[in-house]
Amino acid sequence: MSDLQNIAKETQIAARQLGILPETARNNALMAIASALEKHQNEIITANKADCDASEGVISSALYARLKLGESKLKSAIAGVQDVARLDDPIAMVSLKRELDEGLILHRVSCPLGVLGVIFEARPDALIQITSLAIKSGNGVILKGGKEALQTCTTLVKIIHETLKNTEVNPNAIQLLTTREEIKGLLTLDKYVDLIIPRGSNEFVRYVQENTKIPVLGHADGICHLFIDSDADLLQAINITVDAKTHYPAACNAIETLLIHKAIATKFLPEIAKALREKGVELRGDEETQKIINCESATEEDWQTEYSDLILAIKIVDNLTNAISHINQYGSKHTDAIVTNNQQNAEIFMSQVDSAGVYHNCSTRFADGFRYGFGAEVGISTQKMPPRGPVGLEGLVTYKYKLIGNGQIAATYTGDNPKDFTHKNLL
Amino acid sequence: MSDLQNIAKETQIAARQLGILPETARNNALMAIASALEKHQNEIITANKADCDASEGVISSALYARLKLGESKLKSAIAGVQDVARLDDPIAMVSLKRELDEGLILHRVSCPLGVLGVIFEARPDALIQITSLAIKSGNGVILKGGKEALQTCTTLVKIIHETLKNTEVNPNAIQLLTTREEIKGLLTLDKYVDLIIPRGSNEFVRYVQENTKIPVLGHADGICHLFIDSDADLLQAINITVDAKTHYPAACNAIETLLIHKAIATKFLPEIAKALREKGVELRGDEETQKIINCESATEEDWQTEYSDLILAIKIVDNLTNAISHINQYGSKHTDAIVTNNQQNAEIFMSQVDSAGVYHNCSTRFADGFRYGFGAEVGISTQKMPPRGPVGLEGLVTYKYKLIGNGQIAATYTGDNPKDFTHKNLL
Repeated sequence: MSDLQNIAKETQIAARQLGILPETARNNALMAIASALEKHQNEIITANKADCDASEGVISSALYARLKLGESKLKSAIAGVQDVARLDDPIAMVSLKRELDEGLILHRVSCPLGVLGVIFEARPDALIQITSLAIKSGNGVILKGGKEALQTCTTLVKIIHETLKNTEVNPNAIQLLTTREEIKGLLTLDKYVDLIIPRGSNEFVRYVQENTKIPVLGHADGICHLFIDSDADLLQAINITVDAKTHYPAACNAIETLLIHKAIATKFLPEIAKALREKGVELRGDEETQKIINCESATEEDWQTEYSDLILAIKIVDNLTNAISHINQYGSKHTDAIVTNNQQNAEIFMSQVDSAGVYHNCSTRFADGFRYGFGAEVGISTQKMPPRGPVGLEGLVTYKYKLIGNGQIAATYTGDNPKDFTHKNLL
Repeated sequence: MSDLQNIAKETQIAARQLGILPETARNNALMAIASALEKHQNEIITANKADCDASEGVISSALYARLKLGESKLKSAIAGVQDVARLDDPIAMVSLKRELDEGLILHRVSCPLGVLGVIFEARPDALIQITSLAIKSGNGVILKGGKEALQTCTTLVKIIHETLKNTEVNPNAIQLLTTREEIKGLLTLDKYVDLIIPRGSNEFVRYVQENTKIPVLGHADGICHLFIDSDADLLQAINITVDAKTHYPAACNAIETLLIHKAIATKFLPEIAKALREKGVELRGDEETQKIINCESATEEDWQTEYSDLILAIKIVDNLTNAISHINQYGSKHTDAIVTNNQQNAEIFMSQVDSAGVYHNCSTRFADGFRYGFGAEVGISTQKMPPRGPVGLEGLVTYKYKLIGNGQIAATYTGDNPKDFTHKNLL
């Protein structure tokens, strides 16, 4: 058995103990971690400074900003741990209670998945958040953070382990991998790991999806669309377009393609082009678009590209049906929106666009677990099977059926003169 | 584009139309199918007779019995279609309605998955059942039945297509593949097919699971356990053991291994051995078992085997913990039961055994969608992510988030002086 398998096995054992702890024990552990992180603030910031110094000038300023864990970011991460402790317990929720027959009662009860494998960027605050969500949901977690954050992550996990020793949570439930090579190994541990959550580039997420039998929560691409219908309020359309493209262009819920109904194109296009260019957006249009405004031409490849940048592809469509077809063909089933005052068109759009989020008269940027009020987000799933869309703590739990009887056997309910089930809901 | 891709694309188009039909349109189509099957009863039975004649003596009598579609079996299949029409509509169920802010309302609404790929045995009544579940849930379906049932399946789909022409359901939503080679192709159509449901041997299901990127609903193995605790009512234990092993040994929810607490082994083993042998069960025991009764010896391989036959492996365990460890190590996360009058032990068992079904004082044979009162069963899943265990119609639907606003943008809720979300549940 490899070292990695041993770690995974230990995590599984610790997770099974954690998974049956009462809510208060898990919450107490979270509060203890929050206090410990506060107490060891200087140690954490010193470790992070070493990470930052080693990476300065080597990584982009955006990555550097994510790596840096200053006092205020640490403080808000600690507040996050306390927030997670205050969330409703996702475990032991009874979603079905049914009498199958007198004295034979079926319960469907939520329970932890087991062990999570979370691979994340060089972002130490993510480690704190993921650890707290794992403990809250009764799951063990094997963490692997970006290498630039190694010293910070090691320090954080050391503090967490020390703290957990004085709680009911077995410290083995939280494990840190420190080398990139271990990621490949982690993906093969389907006997021990129940869910992989990969964070990072589209390519990395796709690599994970294609190289493991373990279920993967997340998404590779976020190719979101906004369709401006002929009946749109144009001022609203401009506001929403600018927000959806420029508010945070690197986000997965930013739009990449703007579809415009031909009936309003001549009026709308020059206005939206002006507004977007003022925000520094580069426009790429199809042939019809280029007849109305000056811009680079959009090719087949543009419709399939997540720019994650201040670039927007524009296409003029003949009607609602063509807009929907374009989205279903090129989209990534993430989030797509329509701006229209035509209620029927809005309903057709929301029914027929096959995406996790279908929006009417608002920005795609609302696709987010916190904005949905889930209190936490573990990822956004673009798969069609649930959980779909932004996923909160409920994505880290599953359920089991508990059937409690007093000697019932199946033969009683079959064959000649079978007894009927009562199937009476008790909840 | 291959023929198969074309078929899948047509199915997807038809499925998108079907998925937005109102409940009554889908139910009317089901009722029309039921009438048509009744009307064409002779044609169906004649086609089936041809299938049966070609297979007589070639396939086992059990398979032959499944292939044969006589008047009474057809009648009950038709009644099944009508039953499905009467089930609650699984589509457009709102499971969350939340105000994010004034005039910005989030809805989580159930919707069809899209296109199902169902591969089933030479069992024509399964085609009728699957088709009706697909239409009810608003999904298209690509069917592939066992080759021995080819004429019956072709006849059934011809009748269904003719019938659907006079309904709102596009006949292309239901497709029949007729060659075994097409299965391999079907598994590659992840762009068009949203869920594969394989039925058949464990090897076949495992083959499907390992050769497709499409989510698979179902399970390969059903290695279920029964643990007789020291505090068990021995008469109850005997009844449950006999039922769980012998009532239908080929079922996935029959037990393969009996675990017995050492404190009662000397008393219980001779009694249960006698009861099981009277039913023709072959016993294979571990060393401790063989000290008490005469039987073949059980090896490591036995703990990992789904006999699907009148064979039972027996192991004596020192305590509850060892029973749980054995189940978690060798089980297939299907259904496992404990017989005990010790309430605490029952609770520990149900919490710690990591299976879709954990039962106390009743037979594992209850693990079944109909017995759970789901009205239908599309499969039993042993994966840990939901849907888990017996899955009814809800396994054929997913959900999407509809967000409806009047111009809201994300920038309003971030930055300096951000507006708060209200997050008010409206349901």
